[in-house]
Amino acid sequence: MTETKINRELLKKNAPIGVFDSGVGGLTVVREIMRQIPNEKIIYFGDTARVPYGSKSKDTVTRFSEQIVRFLRTFQVKTIVAACNTVSAYALDVLEKDTDVPIIGVVKPGAKTAMEATKNRRIGVIATEATIGSGIYANYIKALNETVEIYGKACPLLVPLVEEGLLEDPVTDEIARRYLTELIDIDIDTLILGCTHYPLIRSTLGRIMGPEVALVNPAYETARELKEMLGELDLLLDEPPGLGSNQYQFYVSDKADKFMHFANSIIKYGILSAKAINIEEY
Amino acid sequence: MTETKINRELLKKNAPIGVFDSGVGGLTVVREIMRQIPNEKIIYFGDTARVPYGSKSKDTVTRFSEQIVRFLRTFQVKTIVAACNTVSAYALDVLEKDTDVPIIGVVKPGAKTAMEATKNRRIGVIATEATIGSGIYANYIKALNETVEIYGKACPLLVPLVEEGLLEDPVTDEIARRYLTELIDIDIDTLILGCTHYPLIRSTLGRIMGPEVALVNPAYETARELKEMLGELDLLLDEPPGLGSNQYQFYVSDKADKFMHFANSIIKYGILSAKAINIEEY
Repeated sequence: MTETKINRELLKKNAPIGVFDSGVGGLTVVREIMRQIPNEKIIYFGDTARVPYGSKSKDTVTRFSEQIVRFLRTFQVKTIVAACNTVSAYALDVLEKDTDVPIIGVVKPGAKTAMEATKNRRIGVIATEATIGSGIYANYIKALNETVEIYGKACPLLVPLVEEGLLEDPVTDEIARRYLTELIDIDIDTLILGCTHYPLIRSTLGRIMGPEVALVNPAYETARELKEMLGELDLLLDEPPGLGSNQYQFYVSDKADKFMHFANSIIKYGILSAKAINIEEY
Repeated sequence: MTETKINRELLKKNAPIGVFDSGVGGLTVVREIMRQIPNEKIIYFGDTARVPYGSKSKDTVTRFSEQIVRFLRTFQVKTIVAACNTVSAYALDVLEKDTDVPIIGVVKPGAKTAMEATKNRRIGVIATEATIGSGIYANYIKALNETVEIYGKACPLLVPLVEEGLLEDPVTDEIARRYLTELIDIDIDTLILGCTHYPLIRSTLGRIMGPEVALVNPAYETARELKEMLGELDLLLDEPPGLGSNQYQFYVSDKADKFMHFANSIIKYGILSAKAINIEEY
């Protein structure tokens, strides 16, 4: 977040928080926000027509993200959370430059938590090809302490396996084990779950890495940082919105029904409905 | 193909054939076209920015396909091949209605070949969720012979596994086996590979199904039907285009480099270059 560009006058306490992701993964971040600041209103957008982002280029991910930010701003959001590691890795700098509303990504909070967790200063990161290729986690962590070693590993099959619901399955176990073996061999003591889908197979990843390795879920720290920032700007709501206020609204770029099914499995509050929009028009 | 709308005056023999797919899978169809009608010029478009299509809705797939057809028509193509089962299942009727250039999909040719192959009149189809959900193979086959039984099985993990290069791998074997077990149990004698990625794991699929089951690759029959149609319309080129004529041109909606890598592994002719365009502008 670059505070300099932010136009404080634009930000209304009663406004919603905008959260977006390439699809459903960002809902693990929404879940954390709901837990930590339950009074807030949320507008969520999942780009289900163009998901996934993690295998695509910086230019494409940036263009898609800019469209989504324009869409979210039509709700006069008081802040935007890029609840997607690939967006946070590829597009956050451009998004920050182009908007006067605060934008928070998931990478920086995740990097900070990992730094606090590591004892042997050997941190692993698992994420999409895009996030790993960008080197963003290493950049943030090195900026905090340049003696820390970062080992990144792209895990492209984990998202499809999670989306197929194979959360506890020998195949997911086998694939995760292949990805993680080299991180085990180099003796990391902290592993960043650098993709919003991965917390859903946390127990599999933990079993493979063993109890000595701390698993860092950036979603938790992102929600904490969001709360802190809203508090500093005096934008935190003191009480829950009234009945019928539509506290949580979900938008997607593809049909809503499939999203709803997955969303309701992640968020136990019950997502009553989602609305499809044409994101290419923004 | 609905012949009625076609404006024969628009179609020039010397024009290229347009071929498109959600990404790289359609290259298995291009490969067949290159083999069967080697004199033809081809403009290929892969929608790598928005791939995959197989998990998305009819409306979204149709909108994307319409943009691509508009893009291909800027090259004055003499025909268009929808080299993607999901597009052929969801969008072909709309595309045919809106354009006066002949359009060929991969489903109808695949259905026809399967009909010719089956002896016990029990045909299996493996494909994306979209293609299976549409029931399109069953519709075409039942139209040819309503006593044939069709068994569809969506195999969403096979595309990511192929794209990860796990063509010969115990994990691909295990996942394929799970998908195929019910088709083996109901004693099909013919299996349609209803997604353009699947021919790349043909040997795995063949090993699991056993030698008694015929595997149908719609790409072959699609190229044959294309050849026949161009012949009937007197649009087949008699000799190869001259040097420097850029016989094969590849366009993508995301960055070209990753596409190039995969494309060159499928097409042995050597793809010299691919160009990225913004498909949302069409």
